[in-house]
Amino acid sequence: MGRISKDPELRRKEFIETADKLFREKGFDQTSVSDITDKIGLSHGSLFYYFPSKNELMKAVIYNRLDHGMQFINNIAADPDKNALQKINAILNLLINSYDTKDTLIDFFQNDSNAALHREFTKRSRELVIPLFSKIFEQGVREGLFKIEYPKETIEYLNYIIENLVESITSSQNKNEYYRKIKALEIIIAKSLGVPEDKMKLL
Amino acid sequence: MGRISKDPELRRKEFIETADKLFREKGFDQTSVSDITDKIGLSHGSLFYYFPSKNELMKAVIYNRLDHGMQFINNIAADPDKNALQKINAILNLLINSYDTKDTLIDFFQNDSNAALHREFTKRSRELVIPLFSKIFEQGVREGLFKIEYPKETIEYLNYIIENLVESITSSQNKNEYYRKIKALEIIIAKSLGVPEDKMKLL
Repeated sequence: MGRISKDPELRRKEFIETADKLFREKGFDQTSVSDITDKIGLSHGSLFYYFPSKNELMKAVIYNRLDHGMQFINNIAADPDKNALQKINAILNLLINSYDTKDTLIDFFQNDSNAALHREFTKRSRELVIPLFSKIFEQGVREGLFKIEYPKETIEYLNYIIENLVESITSSQNKNEYYRKIKALEIIIAKSLGVPEDKMKLL
Repeated sequence: MGRISKDPELRRKEFIETADKLFREKGFDQTSVSDITDKIGLSHGSLFYYFPSKNELMKAVIYNRLDHGMQFINNIAADPDKNALQKINAILNLLINSYDTKDTLIDFFQNDSNAALHREFTKRSRELVIPLFSKIFEQGVREGLFKIEYPKETIEYLNYIIENLVESITSSQNKNEYYRKIKALEIIIAKSLGVPEDKMKLL
C-alpha cells in the first residue's frame, strides 16, 4: 500500500481535490465521507486524520477554490498586453462564467450554520480583490481610459455589487433575466468608470 | 403591583424599548438582564417570561428598529409633495444620518454566532426596501427625471451598496474619509439614475 505512506500535504490536497469534484457533481449533502475515501482508495476513517469533519473539508475546498480563482484574476491583472479596460472586462467575464448551476457553494453558504463562514469568505475575497482592482483603476486613469473622481470609494461600492453577482446571476429564471442583469451590470460599471457603455463587453 | 398585571403585549414592547435604549447607551454585552428588569421595576427572572434569552430580546430589538426605520422610509415614499429625486435624497440622508458610533448593532452582527441573524436581517430589509425603491424609480422615469434602462436590476445593484453603506460610513477614520465616501455615493447613484451629480445632496 504505497498510497498510505504518501506525503501528508499531498494527501491533504488529494482529499480537497477529490471532495471538490464530488461536491460539484453530487452536492455537499449528497456526498458521503465514504464516497470521498472510496475514490481515493482509503478507509472511511482516514479522512479524519486530515480534517476534523466533513464540514472542515468543505471549508478547505472553498478556500482552495478562492486560491484558484485568485490565480486567474492575478494573471489577468499582471498581463502586460492588456489595458485596464480589457482587464476589468476579462475579470468580470471570468466571474460571470464561473457560475455553475450544479454547484453547491451557494447552497452550502445559504445554510444558517455556515453563515459565519460565508461572511469570513466574503471578507477574505474582499481583502484579496480590492488591492488588485485599485491597481487596475490606477492603470486606467494613467492610460486616460477611466475618469473616476474617488477611485478607492468607487471600488468599494462596485465590489459590493461584484461580490453578490454570482448569486444574483444564478437566481435568473430565464435567458432574458440573465441578459438584463448583465446589461445593467455593464452600464453601472461603465458609468462608474467613466467609459462609454459599449466598451464593457460582458455578453 | 399594578405593573405586574400589565397587558403582555405592552410589557413585551416595554422590554424591547427599554433594552434598545440600554443597548445603545451601554452596548449589548455590557447590558445585563438585571439592568433591563431594574429599569422596568421587575424581577430578574421576569424577562424570560417574555423572551427565551437576552439574545432573543436583542433580535426583537433589531426587528423593532427595522420596523421604525421602515415607517420613516414609507412616509417619505408616500409623500405626495416630493418628486422621485427628492425621495431618493431624503431616504439616503435618513440612512446616512441614522448611524451612531456608540451603537452596537454592527458589533452585534459582527459576532460569528449572529452571522445567520445578520443575513436574515439583510434579506428582510431587502424584501421591504426593494419594492419601495421600484415605485420611486418608476415615478422618477414618469416625471422625466431619471433615465434608467434596467430599473429592476439597477435597484438590485444599488441596494447592495446601500445595505453596506452604514457599516462602510461608520468605518471612516476621519472627516475626509467620510466626505469622500458620501461624494462617491452621490456620483454612483446620480450616474445610475441618469441625473446630474449636483442633484444628489447627501452632505
